[in-house]
Amino acid sequence: MTQAENHDREQGSRLDPRYDAAGLITAVVTHHETGELLMLAHMNAEALAATLESGEATFYSRSRGRLWKKGETSGHVMRLIEARIDCDQDALWLRCDPVGPACHTGESTCFYRAVEPDGRSLRRIAHPK
Amino acid sequence: MTQAENHDREQGSRLDPRYDAAGLITAVVTHHETGELLMLAHMNAEALAATLESGEATFYSRSRGRLWKKGETSGHVMRLIEARIDCDQDALWLRCDPVGPACHTGESTCFYRAVEPDGRSLRRIAHPK
Repeated sequence: MTQAENHDREQGSRLDPRYDAAGLITAVVTHHETGELLMLAHMNAEALAATLESGEATFYSRSRGRLWKKGETSGHVMRLIEARIDCDQDALWLRCDPVGPACHTGESTCFYRAVEPDGRSLRRIAHPK
Repeated sequence: MTQAENHDREQGSRLDPRYDAAGLITAVVTHHETGELLMLAHMNAEALAATLESGEATFYSRSRGRLWKKGETSGHVMRLIEARIDCDQDALWLRCDPVGPACHTGESTCFYRAVEPDGRSLRRIAHPK
């Protein structure tokens, strides 16, 4: 990548995601009001297009090898409020309004455990907001 | 992974990060008060240990091939308030108090551009919080 290309990618107004070798980009989902981190997933170009068109978060499931609309079976969709991309365009931020729990465990967020300072144990958050 | 191992990883109180083939795990950094997504980076086991010990976010730089303490040259360190891990322990959430801009461009966050609904263009956020 030349310096000019790099500058355009960082400062320009053209969406030009840097997908990885598998054609994927990391997508971070937060609650649009509380800022809580809800989940992390991956998108390919098709998932990103589907998300922007439908207004509901759609990812690429690496385990299932197909597009996966969050909530397609549970009904717990993630309504997209705003999508952002980072400086070098290799990560997406989806600010969402979640219709239900983000996590398959039923927790509101996948991040329901804190790492203790000892670096070995986890503490469950009583009521992750 | 057996069902029992999977259950322990998701519900247990033992930190057991699932590093990828390169020994890395994705780390998401948000502002501990506003919930703003500041940056994404990667950690290896050494970076995670250094972060927990020092209380300042330390990552593994894939481009430089070495540990990289955020702010080591700029002074813009990220003070760790809380670290969390997700259900299947393949992603970390660092809630931080940033001493300065998170982004190398000088922006407070790396996510300073929103994706327009057309799916092609970007809009700069005037004052990303």
